[in-house]
Amino acid sequence: MRIALLGGTGDIGEALALRWAYHTDHDLVIGSRDAARAEEAAASYASTIEDCGMETTVSGSVNADAVDGARVVVLAVPPYYVTDTIESVKASLTDNSVLISPAVGISRDEDGFHYSPPETGSVTALVADVAPANVPVVGAFHNLAAGRLGDLDAELDIDTVVLGDDDEAKGTVCRLVNDIPGLRPLDGGGLANASEVEAITPLLINLAQKNDGMQDLGVTFH
Amino acid sequence: MRIALLGGTGDIGEALALRWAYHTDHDLVIGSRDAARAEEAAASYASTIEDCGMETTVSGSVNADAVDGARVVVLAVPPYYVTDTIESVKASLTDNSVLISPAVGISRDEDGFHYSPPETGSVTALVADVAPANVPVVGAFHNLAAGRLGDLDAELDIDTVVLGDDDEAKGTVCRLVNDIPGLRPLDGGGLANASEVEAITPLLINLAQKNDGMQDLGVTFH
Repeated sequence: MRIALLGGTGDIGEALALRWAYHTDHDLVIGSRDAARAEEAAASYASTIEDCGMETTVSGSVNADAVDGARVVVLAVPPYYVTDTIESVKASLTDNSVLISPAVGISRDEDGFHYSPPETGSVTALVADVAPANVPVVGAFHNLAAGRLGDLDAELDIDTVVLGDDDEAKGTVCRLVNDIPGLRPLDGGGLANASEVEAITPLLINLAQKNDGMQDLGVTFH
Repeated sequence: MRIALLGGTGDIGEALALRWAYHTDHDLVIGSRDAARAEEAAASYASTIEDCGMETTVSGSVNADAVDGARVVVLAVPPYYVTDTIESVKASLTDNSVLISPAVGISRDEDGFHYSPPETGSVTALVADVAPANVPVVGAFHNLAAGRLGDLDAELDIDTVVLGDDDEAKGTVCRLVNDIPGLRPLDGGGLANASEVEAITPLLINLAQKNDGMQDLGVTFH
């Protein structure tokens, strides 16, 4: 499956790229606003995987080209770039595409980190608002620490909640979650339920800062 | 330590009462607006503990009397009763009291359950607003399934995030959490960080409804 990781030069894009490159034979394309940066990141990720003794191909290109022919498009960009990024790739999205939204709006003050959603209630809902109506949106990978996900030796044993209004698209994303050992997909219901999931991310940062020995936290529901 | 469980006839009050009665020798008082209901619940909880072959004393009284002399007061009432309940016991609270807020505002629509905080941002913050300024408020026990907590045979192995602006009061509550085997207290920082914790509760209900084999869910951060 061809997967485009828009904003794939950032930390969560890198972590997902490394995991899928390591554990699967999906065709990965790193997208960026800058083709040279995308190509450089792709070469670096491929080199990391090859250093593990595995073969892989990861390519890089500007976002719009990365989306071309991709079955799944991950919007691994900061929340304030979500709208512009979707606008810039809209023409390449088709009925057959699935858009994944992992971004979370976070603010910080003297008390710690806080959930700061857009007016739509969640970034996931914002993506659904901005995306073409024929392209299903799925929320996933919101509560993953990039440092841990991107460390191929790290044990994960954590959950990610998958949200969406299109069951087939959700199924596709659940299989992509299951491709990563130690990451369990849980059905969180529709896009309207995304804010409670996104809100966990600032909590994870607060917990890591305030409790000795905790870092790169994930969450498990059981 | 004397612990008053206001709204202790409800499910989370019952669950905490049973756990502390079973695992500790704290002096437990069940509070209710109706003394007869409080006494009846207290007798029922004591009977459950005695059926396990343990001795315990659990008493019951109207909320204001339950608070009298209590070191810790748990507001185990629905969120819309929090303000009235505090008003009704204010005169009995002292500098030495600690108020624990476990309540969460939840709404429901066709998509599932949603976090529905009061205008203060969280029920925990509402409690702090309404409580006398000299009485420290601690948020805790927000994400516990009453059915699981109240089943003395159930393995917990879950976390509860403790929030507050008074470190001594937080320490007292952390010890009360540690009194319950399998329940781990984590420091979530100040009261301003409560909404992200409270928001997990509707998510737990959604996950239990939408994933086979999941019920009475708790959360672990690791």
